Amino acid sequence: MKSYLEMTKEELSVEIESLRSEYRKYQGMELKLDMSRGKPCLDQLDLSMGMMDALNSRADLSCADGTDCRNYGLLEGIQEARELLGDMMENNPKNILIYGNSSLNVMYDQISRSFTHGVMGNTPWCKLDKVKWLCPVPGYDRHFSITEYFGIEMLPVPMTPAGPDMGIVEKMVAEDKAIKGIWCVPKYSNPQGYSYSDETVRRFARLKPAAKDFRIYWDNAYGIHHLYDDHQDYLIEILAECKRAGNPDLVYKFSSTSKITFPGSGLAAIATSANNLEDIKTQLRNQTIGHDKVNQLRHVRFFKDIHGMTEHMRRHADILRPKFESVENIFEENLGGLGIAEWTKPNGGYFISFDGMKGSAKLIVDRAMKAGVKLTPAGSTWPYHNDPEDKNIRIAPTYPTLEDLSTAARLFTVCVRLVSAELLFDGME
Amino acid sequence: MKSYLEMTKEELSVEIESLRSEYRKYQGMELKLDMSRGKPCLDQLDLSMGMMDALNSRADLSCADGTDCRNYGLLEGIQEARELLGDMMENNPKNILIYGNSSLNVMYDQISRSFTHGVMGNTPWCKLDKVKWLCPVPGYDRHFSITEYFGIEMLPVPMTPAGPDMGIVEKMVAEDKAIKGIWCVPKYSNPQGYSYSDETVRRFARLKPAAKDFRIYWDNAYGIHHLYDDHQDYLIEILAECKRAGNPDLVYKFSSTSKITFPGSGLAAIATSANNLEDIKTQLRNQTIGHDKVNQLRHVRFFKDIHGMTEHMRRHADILRPKFESVENIFEENLGGLGIAEWTKPNGGYFISFDGMKGSAKLIVDRAMKAGVKLTPAGSTWPYHNDPEDKNIRIAPTYPTLEDLSTAARLFTVCVRLVSAELLFDGME
Repeated sequence: MKSYLEMTKEELSVEIESLRSEYRKYQGMELKLDMSRGKPCLDQLDLSMGMMDALNSRADLSCADGTDCRNYGLLEGIQEARELLGDMMENNPKNILIYGNSSLNVMYDQISRSFTHGVMGNTPWCKLDKVKWLCPVPGYDRHFSITEYFGIEMLPVPMTPAGPDMGIVEKMVAEDKAIKGIWCVPKYSNPQGYSYSDETVRRFARLKPAAKDFRIYWDNAYGIHHLYDDHQDYLIEILAECKRAGNPDLVYKFSSTSKITFPGSGLAAIATSANNLEDIKTQLRNQTIGHDKVNQLRHVRFFKDIHGMTEHMRRHADILRPKFESVENIFEENLGGLGIAEWTKPNGGYFISFDGMKGSAKLIVDRAMKAGVKLTPAGSTWPYHNDPEDKNIRIAPTYPTLEDLSTAARLFTVCVRLVSAELLFDGME
Repeated sequence: MKSYLEMTKEELSVEIESLRSEYRKYQGMELKLDMSRGKPCLDQLDLSMGMMDALNSRADLSCADGTDCRNYGLLEGIQEARELLGDMMENNPKNILIYGNSSLNVMYDQISRSFTHGVMGNTPWCKLDKVKWLCPVPGYDRHFSITEYFGIEMLPVPMTPAGPDMGIVEKMVAEDKAIKGIWCVPKYSNPQGYSYSDETVRRFARLKPAAKDFRIYWDNAYGIHHLYDDHQDYLIEILAECKRAGNPDLVYKFSSTSKITFPGSGLAAIATSANNLEDIKTQLRNQTIGHDKVNQLRHVRFFKDIHGMTEHMRRHADILRPKFESVENIFEENLGGLGIAEWTKPNGGYFISFDGMKGSAKLIVDRAMKAGVKLTPAGSTWPYHNDPEDKNIRIAPTYPTLEDLSTAARLFTVCVRLVSAELLFDGME
C-alpha cells in the first residue's frame, strides 16, 4: 500500500471516506471485546485445573521436613516451594521468600516499609523531603500507580530494544540521592516484550547510586513466559551478576505464578541477598505469621519440579502464539508500509507495544471504544498517564478468543488508519 | 490445702523440699511440650480436611454472578464469601471486604496506610510528632508488636471481666488527640477469655475521641469460638451500635477463619462503614488487584452457609472443651485455696489468663521451660513485654494432646507452687 505520508489531500480524502464506511460496519456489529489487560484466557486457565486435584482430603499436607502446612508458621514459605520457585527464578532457595498471591502486593509492601521504616537502617522515606524514581517508558501502569500513590516523583527514562537507556540511568542515579529505585520488567517487558541485553544487565549490576538505599525493582514477571521453543530471549540472572559486581544488596527481584497457574490464586516471591532478606524478615514478622502454605504445597504437588512447570508453559505458549501472530499479521497486512505506525514482535510475555503518529493514541483508543473494543487507556504506559507524544498503546492479545481477537485487531487497524489519515488531512491546513 | 500465705517458715521449708523433689521428677521425664501459642491441634485441623475436596478439576470455579474465580479481579472478594463471612461476623455483606490469609496482616496494613497516607484525608501519622494507642492489659502480644514496630506509644488500660475500664478509655481518648486507636479482642479476649459487656460495647460506640482519625481496632478473632452449647457469651454487634450512636465510622472490625479452617490458609476480612471501606479501597487498589478468590470459593463450597460453619465450630468445641476443663481442674486441684494464684474460666476462645504472685511470672515460665514445657514468655501480654507486677502468664491449652496437656498443666502447678513458696520463704527475711 502507498504510504499515507506520500498521499495527496485528495487521496487522503478518498481513503478517509472508505475507512469511515468500514468503521461504521464494525459499529453495526455491536462488538464487546476487551483487549485492555494482560489477563490469561479461559483455555489458559483450564490448563491448571489439575491443580485442584493436587491436594484432597486424603492427602498428607505435610512437607518433607515435617512442617504441617495446615498450621501457623514458616515466614519464608515451605522449603519445597522455595526450591520450585528457586528453579523458576534461577536463584538459590535460601535467597527466596514466598509471599501470598500477588507480586504487586510484595512490591507495594516493599515501598511502603521503606517509607515507614527505611531500608537497612537508612532514613525512612517518609522523613525525606523528596523521593524520586526512574521509570523506563513506555512501562507498566500498575508499577507507576504504586509510586504515584506514595507521592514519589517519577522520572521517565527511554526504553530501547536492549532495555532502558543505561547512560541516562547511570548518570541520574549517581548524581541524585533522592532517586531510590527504578522499575524494571527485564524480560519480555511490559508493554514492548523487549528483554534486557547482557550489557544492560551488567551495567545495572554495576550502578553506583548516590543513595545507599537505592534498589532496583526487578519485576521478572515473564521469566518463563516464552511464545516459542526455538526463539527464546535470554536474560542474565541479576542477583548473581550483582554479587559478581560487588553490589549484592542492589536488587529486589520479584516473580509470581500469576500467569502460570491462576492469577490471584498463585504464589508470589521475592529473591534478594541475605542482608536484604534479613531486613525484610525483621519487618515482615510484625505483619504476618506466614503466608498460605497449603497453596504453596498445592503448587509443588501439581508441578512436581521445574520440568513440570516448563512443560506447562509450553501449553500456554501453544495457546498464545497464534494470538500474537494473528495480531502481528493483521497489523502488517493493514498498516505495513503506511508510515503511520510501528509495533513490537515479542518472543514472549503478554503484550505488544504499538506506536502511532504523534497525537493519535487517545483518538485511536476512543474510536475503538466507540465500536465496542476496549483497549488499555492511552497514556497508561507513562507515569501520571502522560504520554508526551500521545502515541503509545499497549496491545493485550491474550484474553479474547482467537476469532474475537482477529476482529478486534482488524477494527483497531481501521481506527489507526482513519485517525492517522484525518490527522494528516487536517495537518495540510 | 492450707493457704501458703498462712504457712510458717518451717511449713514453707517442708513444702519447698517436697516440691523440689516433685519438680525433679518432671525434669527426669524429658518432656518437650508447647503451650506457648494459640495453635489448633491436629484433631482440629483434621476437621477441615474435607475442604480439600470442596473444589476439584471438574468443578465450576465461577460464582453465581458469573465471576471466574480463576482470573484477576474483584478487590472486595466474591459475593458468596462476603455473605458467608457477613453471617459469621453479623454484618451486611456490603460492609465486608475479604482479604488474604491473615487478619493480623490486615490490621498491620491498616496502621501502615494510616502512617503513609492518613485516615480519610487526615494528616498521615508519619507527619505527626507522636502517635499513641490504648492497650487493654493483659492483651495480645502480636497486637502490641505491630504498634511497637511503628513506634506508637502504647498506654496500658486495665481489663475487667466486662472489658476495658471504660472510664479511663473515655477520659483518655477525649483528652489526647495523639491517641489514634485502641486494640480490642471483644469476645473471649486474648488472654482472659472475657467478653465485653453490653454497657462496655455501648460506651465504645459512644466514645468522643479528640482525634477525628481515632479508630477502634475491634479484633473479633473468636466470635464463634464457643466451648459450650449452653454457656455462650453474647456480644453486641459494634458496627450497628456505632451507627445507632451516630458514630458510623468509629470502628474497624477484623475477623478470620484462621481458627475455623486452617491457620495461614483461611480467609481474613474487615467489616466497617461505607465511608471507611471507600477510604480503604482507594488505597488498596494500588496494592493489589485482588485476593485469592479460589480459596474464597473453596471455603464457601465447603461450609455452604453459616449453619455449616456453626456445626463445624461445635466439633472444634468438642475437642477443645475437655482441654480447657482439664487445665481448670488441675489448677483448682493443685492451686485452689493456696492464695497464690488466680485464673480465668472462659466460655470460649483460645486462652486462659493466669495471675500468680507479684514477681513470680518470669520465674514460673523459666522453671517450666527447664522441665521441658514451653509457655508464652512472661511479660508478653503487656506492651513492651513489660508486666509491671510480673504476674501474668497466658495459658494456651489447644495445641498439645489432652494427655500431654494434663502433664504440662500439672508441672505448671508444681512450678507455681515452688516459685511462690520460695518467694514467700525469702520474703520472711
